[in-house]
Amino acid sequence: MRIAVLAGGIGGARFLLGVRAWARAHDAEVTAIVNVGDDVTLHGLRICPDLDSIMYTLGGGSDTERGWGRAGESWTVKEELAKYGAEPTWFGLGDKDIATHLVRTRQLSAGLPLSQITRNLCERWQPGITMLPATDNKLETHAVTDQGAVHFQEWWIRYRADIPTETFVFLGAAESRPAPGVLEALDSADVILVAPSNPVVSIAPILAVPGLRAALVGRKVVGVSPIIGDAPVRGMADKCLAVLGVPVTAGAVGAMYADFLTAWLVDSDDTAEIEGVEVVRTPLWMTDEAATVAMVEAALAC
Amino acid sequence: MRIAVLAGGIGGARFLLGVRAWARAHDAEVTAIVNVGDDVTLHGLRICPDLDSIMYTLGGGSDTERGWGRAGESWTVKEELAKYGAEPTWFGLGDKDIATHLVRTRQLSAGLPLSQITRNLCERWQPGITMLPATDNKLETHAVTDQGAVHFQEWWIRYRADIPTETFVFLGAAESRPAPGVLEALDSADVILVAPSNPVVSIAPILAVPGLRAALVGRKVVGVSPIIGDAPVRGMADKCLAVLGVPVTAGAVGAMYADFLTAWLVDSDDTAEIEGVEVVRTPLWMTDEAATVAMVEAALAC
Repeated sequence: MRIAVLAGGIGGARFLLGVRAWARAHDAEVTAIVNVGDDVTLHGLRICPDLDSIMYTLGGGSDTERGWGRAGESWTVKEELAKYGAEPTWFGLGDKDIATHLVRTRQLSAGLPLSQITRNLCERWQPGITMLPATDNKLETHAVTDQGAVHFQEWWIRYRADIPTETFVFLGAAESRPAPGVLEALDSADVILVAPSNPVVSIAPILAVPGLRAALVGRKVVGVSPIIGDAPVRGMADKCLAVLGVPVTAGAVGAMYADFLTAWLVDSDDTAEIEGVEVVRTPLWMTDEAATVAMVEAALAC
Repeated sequence: MRIAVLAGGIGGARFLLGVRAWARAHDAEVTAIVNVGDDVTLHGLRICPDLDSIMYTLGGGSDTERGWGRAGESWTVKEELAKYGAEPTWFGLGDKDIATHLVRTRQLSAGLPLSQITRNLCERWQPGITMLPATDNKLETHAVTDQGAVHFQEWWIRYRADIPTETFVFLGAAESRPAPGVLEALDSADVILVAPSNPVVSIAPILAVPGLRAALVGRKVVGVSPIIGDAPVRGMADKCLAVLGVPVTAGAVGAMYADFLTAWLVDSDDTAEIEGVEVVRTPLWMTDEAATVAMVEAALAC
């Protein structure tokens, strides 16, 4: 069995832990198609937060308490950069993390595509799944604010999503192409899962790669709501949805995917209905791997 | 009074501590013209060992026990790079040091010349002297060995100067120009000092910048021998001299500069004579700053 998963952020990483566990027990192959919209160049380093979160989480190197970055991280370089007055200072650039960025940046400079570099980095981390960036092209999510366009990372971390914002744009998306293997993974998948990731800035940038959304239509696609009750499970999906005027409900998020969704998993008590989409009610709290595996089971049973 | 100093390496850094102390007591201005032949790009970072050694030493941030790098240094990034199998692994790339290289590399990428970047970095370190790279152009010392041309840092650190070596070449020297301010500093100096730095790979690459050696001829130039007895005070100048077939003596090193030297300081018991050069015998061990200041006094008294 082949499973493809659209994923980004910490929600995507945790969900993939469950998908991997299920896949190991059932001899299935998993390919994650990962958001690159959060990718950013800071201090000359190319940083891919979503690829790294997933790689570190599946590779057993993530800080599960803090929720992002490396376990046992230190911050010497960041403190030194601040002493030089080097901007920006708002990004949490850990020492261990920097090694990843150095390796990636050097390989990018040498002309390697991000998909190849991701494969190279995964030789160390052995995530147990195939990880593909949605695109090898530069595609960055920017918030259009009253202070001009601001990279999503800056909007999120520096401004805490708390400045007047008109919309989000995916710079470079129109000229981007799916990374090698992405369309093949979707085409050959028995089921395509949409992780409970931020719909506006994790999943939408993936879908913005030309050809990607079209590849989902008519396929078996099961999504998992990142909203439980009337709040995101984690992160600030509510603030992103507010920018677009989309209600913070599982039903409203599912409706964003209605053109390609076969089924939509919402939490047990949710009353959402989406025309043309099977809505499945099941516990969505990823409290541990077993709970996440149960979610995956429910998704695959659709 | 204006003093210009040709310098490189740890010997240069320690000597400059004495020059600065003397200058502070006598209201003199000091400009160091620093070797860039050791500069190297590793892991995508542009590293300037001599500029940094001098900057850290004069700025009070150097590890005086180890003899190079930053005090209180940590090695997290280096260890992580090794876990990725990222080559090379032989260079001592400390976490604090990396911040300097990130700032420099980013500014180089933005198009700033090394002399401007050095000035920017010195805003933090306040070395109390003007630091100029010998050139803003890329000039790298390579050893011509039986394994091909090897960057001097690799020859020195990885191979411990212990592979059959024919000569040294200063790649890029012929096309280089003195950095802004270098010729002006030499022209306006009341005295030009040559620090007790490695003559083959610290001073020679400075002199290889077209126009620089010529600017010394006919001026008051006083050099300090890096050789005491028949051995270098530190480092591996003996191995570098051996490559060129130059005896490891204060007299032989002074003779390398005979075309422009006014005077040459050798240790008290040394019997060196150099035709056309005043040889001054004085204690040359830089055991502490006071001893170094005494050396500087002796040099300025010539």
